Amino acid sequence: MASKRDIVGVPIRRADAVEKVTGRAQFGTDLRVPGMVYAKLLRSPLAHARINSIDTSAAASLPGVLRVAVGRDVTGCRPYFGPAFPDQPILAIDEVLFEGEPVAAVVATDEDIARRALELIDVDYDPLPALDMDMALRPDAPLLHAKANAAGHFKDLSDIGGQERSSNVCHESVTKWGDVAAGFAEADRIFEHTFTFPAVAHVSLEPYVTIAHWDGPRLEVWSSTQHAHPVRAELAEIFGLSLQQVRVVVPYIGGAYGAKCYTKYEPLASYLAREVGLPVRLMEDPFHTLTRHAASITIKSGVKLDGTITARESDVNLDTGAYSDIGPRVANKTSYRTIGPYRIPNVLSRARAIFTNHVPAGAFRGYGAPQGQWAVESHMDLIAEDLGLDPLEFRMKNLVGLGERWNPTDTPIDGDFRQGLGRVAERFGWPMQRSGIAVGVKDGGGRHTIAQATVRVHNDGTATVQADAVEMGQGIRTVLAQIAAEELGLPFTSVHVTLPDTDAIPWDQGVSASRGTTVVGKAVWEAAHACRQRLEGEGGLDPAAKGQEALSDTVRRIFGMPGGEVVGHGVVKPGSFGPGATTYWEAGYGAAQVSVDEQTGVIRLDRYITGADIGLAINPDTAEGQDEGAALMGIGHSLFEELVYQDGQLLNGNLIEYRVPTFSDVPETFESILIENEDGPGPFGCKGVGESGIVPVAPAIANAVARACGVRLFDLPLTPERVWRALAARKGAPAPSETPTKGRI
Amino acid sequence: MASKRDIVGVPIRRADAVEKVTGRAQFGTDLRVPGMVYAKLLRSPLAHARINSIDTSAAASLPGVLRVAVGRDVTGCRPYFGPAFPDQPILAIDEVLFEGEPVAAVVATDEDIARRALELIDVDYDPLPALDMDMALRPDAPLLHAKANAAGHFKDLSDIGGQERSSNVCHESVTKWGDVAAGFAEADRIFEHTFTFPAVAHVSLEPYVTIAHWDGPRLEVWSSTQHAHPVRAELAEIFGLSLQQVRVVVPYIGGAYGAKCYTKYEPLASYLAREVGLPVRLMEDPFHTLTRHAASITIKSGVKLDGTITARESDVNLDTGAYSDIGPRVANKTSYRTIGPYRIPNVLSRARAIFTNHVPAGAFRGYGAPQGQWAVESHMDLIAEDLGLDPLEFRMKNLVGLGERWNPTDTPIDGDFRQGLGRVAERFGWPMQRSGIAVGVKDGGGRHTIAQATVRVHNDGTATVQADAVEMGQGIRTVLAQIAAEELGLPFTSVHVTLPDTDAIPWDQGVSASRGTTVVGKAVWEAAHACRQRLEGEGGLDPAAKGQEALSDTVRRIFGMPGGEVVGHGVVKPGSFGPGATTYWEAGYGAAQVSVDEQTGVIRLDRYITGADIGLAINPDTAEGQDEGAALMGIGHSLFEELVYQDGQLLNGNLIEYRVPTFSDVPETFESILIENEDGPGPFGCKGVGESGIVPVAPAIANAVARACGVRLFDLPLTPERVWRALAARKGAPAPSETPTKGRI
Repeated sequence: MASKRDIVGVPIRRADAVEKVTGRAQFGTDLRVPGMVYAKLLRSPLAHARINSIDTSAAASLPGVLRVAVGRDVTGCRPYFGPAFPDQPILAIDEVLFEGEPVAAVVATDEDIARRALELIDVDYDPLPALDMDMALRPDAPLLHAKANAAGHFKDLSDIGGQERSSNVCHESVTKWGDVAAGFAEADRIFEHTFTFPAVAHVSLEPYVTIAHWDGPRLEVWSSTQHAHPVRAELAEIFGLSLQQVRVVVPYIGGAYGAKCYTKYEPLASYLAREVGLPVRLMEDPFHTLTRHAASITIKSGVKLDGTITARESDVNLDTGAYSDIGPRVANKTSYRTIGPYRIPNVLSRARAIFTNHVPAGAFRGYGAPQGQWAVESHMDLIAEDLGLDPLEFRMKNLVGLGERWNPTDTPIDGDFRQGLGRVAERFGWPMQRSGIAVGVKDGGGRHTIAQATVRVHNDGTATVQADAVEMGQGIRTVLAQIAAEELGLPFTSVHVTLPDTDAIPWDQGVSASRGTTVVGKAVWEAAHACRQRLEGEGGLDPAAKGQEALSDTVRRIFGMPGGEVVGHGVVKPGSFGPGATTYWEAGYGAAQVSVDEQTGVIRLDRYITGADIGLAINPDTAEGQDEGAALMGIGHSLFEELVYQDGQLLNGNLIEYRVPTFSDVPETFESILIENEDGPGPFGCKGVGESGIVPVAPAIANAVARACGVRLFDLPLTPERVWRALAARKGAPAPSETPTKGRI
Repeated sequence: MASKRDIVGVPIRRADAVEKVTGRAQFGTDLRVPGMVYAKLLRSPLAHARINSIDTSAAASLPGVLRVAVGRDVTGCRPYFGPAFPDQPILAIDEVLFEGEPVAAVVATDEDIARRALELIDVDYDPLPALDMDMALRPDAPLLHAKANAAGHFKDLSDIGGQERSSNVCHESVTKWGDVAAGFAEADRIFEHTFTFPAVAHVSLEPYVTIAHWDGPRLEVWSSTQHAHPVRAELAEIFGLSLQQVRVVVPYIGGAYGAKCYTKYEPLASYLAREVGLPVRLMEDPFHTLTRHAASITIKSGVKLDGTITARESDVNLDTGAYSDIGPRVANKTSYRTIGPYRIPNVLSRARAIFTNHVPAGAFRGYGAPQGQWAVESHMDLIAEDLGLDPLEFRMKNLVGLGERWNPTDTPIDGDFRQGLGRVAERFGWPMQRSGIAVGVKDGGGRHTIAQATVRVHNDGTATVQADAVEMGQGIRTVLAQIAAEELGLPFTSVHVTLPDTDAIPWDQGVSASRGTTVVGKAVWEAAHACRQRLEGEGGLDPAAKGQEALSDTVRRIFGMPGGEVVGHGVVKPGSFGPGATTYWEAGYGAAQVSVDEQTGVIRLDRYITGADIGLAINPDTAEGQDEGAALMGIGHSLFEELVYQDGQLLNGNLIEYRVPTFSDVPETFESILIENEDGPGPFGCKGVGESGIVPVAPAIANAVARACGVRLFDLPLTPERVWRALAARKGAPAPSETPTKGRI
């Protein structure tokens, strides 16, 4: 079957390669709309405070300033936004809940004037104590969102249990099956460990860019969003419009990683544009917009002496920051993703998102899995070590098998995890000294998801694909073109994939959760297949015929003249991938070898092999790029990335003090292995590969560190200071109390 | 049935009314693209000449000038364009064939610099004799397109008979049925008359605007064209691209009337944009781009004494100007439209497009019918007068009836012409003094035509229509929204119709030939119907249910969650309207009453009633606007409009010297009667109404003049000079030889 493919499985050069390397590609930052004016935001210097008054008069009278707005001005629309509970004010109303929260906006004829006007705004604050997770969970803690609930701006109070909140828990999720008490009773040994994971920043190359424009009653927004249609839907809600009155257009995005999921600055830009009657451009700071949830994870397992796991319980607190964003859903996923891909008959896993006075946390590559599996996979090594089992063997024994049900009610496992881990271990040369392995599995593709696409075969035999091809660097335009070209029987270059525009492409949930290739791709395949069916049926095209000329002749035959095009529509909706909620299982494997400098605590990552169970790589080059990129991102939060807060103040929220991996952090040996069994539910048996690579990195490295120098680390990142302290403690030296570390050491 | 309609048949305010009256609507002239530069054209001062040399060096060295191009520079593409035969050079090559032909183009950073640079270009011409139709038809006339043929740039030489041309006849069309010789032999009387019709200008408010931009190998064009997809197809041919590599976007158009059919300045703007690597804007003079064909029409009829017509023969020469444009198809249509909507058993009608050294002539509201039926309907009155029959009775006796076949091989007549003419006559109060009537029928909607549309019902129950809604003032966005809303069961304001973009809308022939409402509308209806079928079938929507909420609930039920949209696709192709080639018969009726000042020859049009057999007016207000606008436009060419040439020089090609009707030309009584029998093939029984109103105006007025003062005029426009001369001739006074008249007297 594979031999019959011409386009799929081939490492074709990206469709956007030339335009990107030549600088021609239009990103959000490049967009200019005639008559456009510029907005800038005044952000709170305090993490928690009441706003007594805001004097905007001096700013408003600066020449070139068109409008100064504060939260109380935001009327004629719902002044809150948020994908789960709309609890985040478009501009702060009477209080601020995190440092950097937008308090006022200036619209001016140029950015410099807007910036100068910000300095003329005088805000009188009453400071309040800034809560971190520990403080927020105390019974006597002030409630950050009691008032917001009372204001009744939640979509549905049943989302939070039908009543106002009585704690700072934004949302709690519980996953359970079997009977953990019975499971622990069966066990020979019980292990319990607690781990922490830091807040980290997405750091995409491009900031958030939104241009909003009111074409009369119609709202048009150009935005660097991963979620064109959901953003359209929320803008419609906020401004009381219908869906057909809102248009969202997405240019190329310079990286997103989840930060650009759902609505962010679109409501504010739209509000300002409405007020000034001109297109407004807003380009904003990512550090004070969204982070990954910091987490504290306690995991407990009952194990028999032969290594059989009888029960697992986990408990996770996630710092969801000042507003919900998509934190509730991250909590849901984290409870599901802090169990591990193992055959465990009795499970109880809890995760809760906690409101704090930190920057809101939300979607980020892996979506709870890096945090949960940092704990699970460290814990697995600790158990193996204690039981005297090889970490690989212990995992192999317990890994859930192909076709088995891991969760008794979810989709059967569609990957051969033992084969995948075995391939990586073999390539790595397991067992080796100073080495660690880990597995990372998440339910991929989004649950209960809808994707739609249109494919048009023109009368010259070439084709256009209209799908939710948000191109944020992941290569989706290339992969969708390959899928359509293969199914249509066309060369790759005969297919054009348009960029998303809600006026032109049908509804689709968006590009997140590793759903692009598998789910959007399936909608595209369905659409292309519908075209091909019509070409072969109505048009009499030979099923073996390929190429532009054959398709062109057929289209012209169908229409009886030159002109016309064959249009196919593809739909993926709940049930399209079978009855289970999980679309597919996205599995990754990591093997690391480290050297630890015992004098300084510096970890050098000598080798890293990442493996991804991809089903089939539609484009092996871009798939490897995704897998390697994910692993390299994981190296960041494993070794040095951390957003450091002190009394609610983000100490390193900038690219000088916050370090992300560079090419100098790439291990000397760094390989990606793609496991291709064509067992995915996507086109040609594919699965997604955008996230799995990030999941096992931290535990693989920490497991390697433990085997290299005998110290077990429970807190990320694995900074030299932490390693040195752990080494010192092991040697019996007095360990001075830990001081906050910054990301860059 | 009509009582069940909520939206269709209701004079709903135009969807674009507010944005147009507030100046917010973006027309081509309003469009700005970042980085855009400007092109201007040097046009030939001579109507026919060889170009010996062009010195562009001074222009090229003017600061701000990016490029100066002449015809010989136009390489790397097919240097010719044209919808029928691509014989028109993108820039003149070695010769010029009409005054105003583009000889050189300058691209500069602003329009003033470009204009100044034009003055620095030095062209050395060898003048040649400028041919008008008479000169062009002489056996010894130089062949204007012998060389072009030899250059082999025709799509297909079989288009012109498989060989090079041996005359200046661009194309000849013959329509025949029966046996005219036998028909004339049967006749009691034979009448023959010759009429002329002037070249006239479209004079839309907005000039031609094109912005072209190369996005790498992809060509993006914003153009004020009526024909988005056909222009895309020709650009692809010219530049060797595939259809998916060319995008044509059409903003609002400020009037077109056929002038903006097919490719005009898009190839030149695209060539220049490619050369300078920047978006290029070209806004150009309509007077030197396209006109309506001047015509000389001879018509001959055999008639029995009781008024039965036994045979008709007509012969038309059309001045197609220097290049083909769509002249060959206008000739085809003219031969078909110079017979008259009468039951005639024996017909022979010939029309030929003749190359001359005039501005090219092409599509113009009516497309050969105003010329042909000027002759037919004047001729009918002359016959009636001679036979002593009332002109109304004579027409009533011979009008082809509902369901009859006029041409034995074409679609049966779908309108009740006798009822329509009777309604107009009754309203007018026929017979009255100083009055004339006329009928104008054309085959409407285009023959063998393809239209496609997509309708999307969003999950809030509102809808988006993606169709070829080129909005050039005719109101198509409003009408298409009404059709979709009615079929979907939605309020009018719940439907948005996008503007055309070939990346987003499926193939459609374009907006011309009165096909928008009937043909594009049918595709939209089919698409909406497909949605409704799916909502009722898969979604279980009650067939009687209407409104956003019901549709929203149904969409959500189909998808099992909020999100998703129901997409329907509609296709119209040859055969969709039945086996006949003609889509529908577009019939109009005119009744005029005049006062003639016998001292000055000035005609005052006192009353004019126009009637249109519209089947059903989707929007009575916009339909009346179309019919009245067409009639008023007809008053222009009837009374004063004429492009005057002398030795190939267009003497009045500007808005100072060329006069179009204004509100002061509207008759005191001016009414439009819409005849609605729901007998059209379009949605809800509609037919088009864009053109019929223009057709009978001139003969109705000339017939009224004949009855008012006894003089019969054979040449348009009916200027005071012509009337005065005719009156003088009737009185036996010496009539001095006629001098060329200008449009404005």
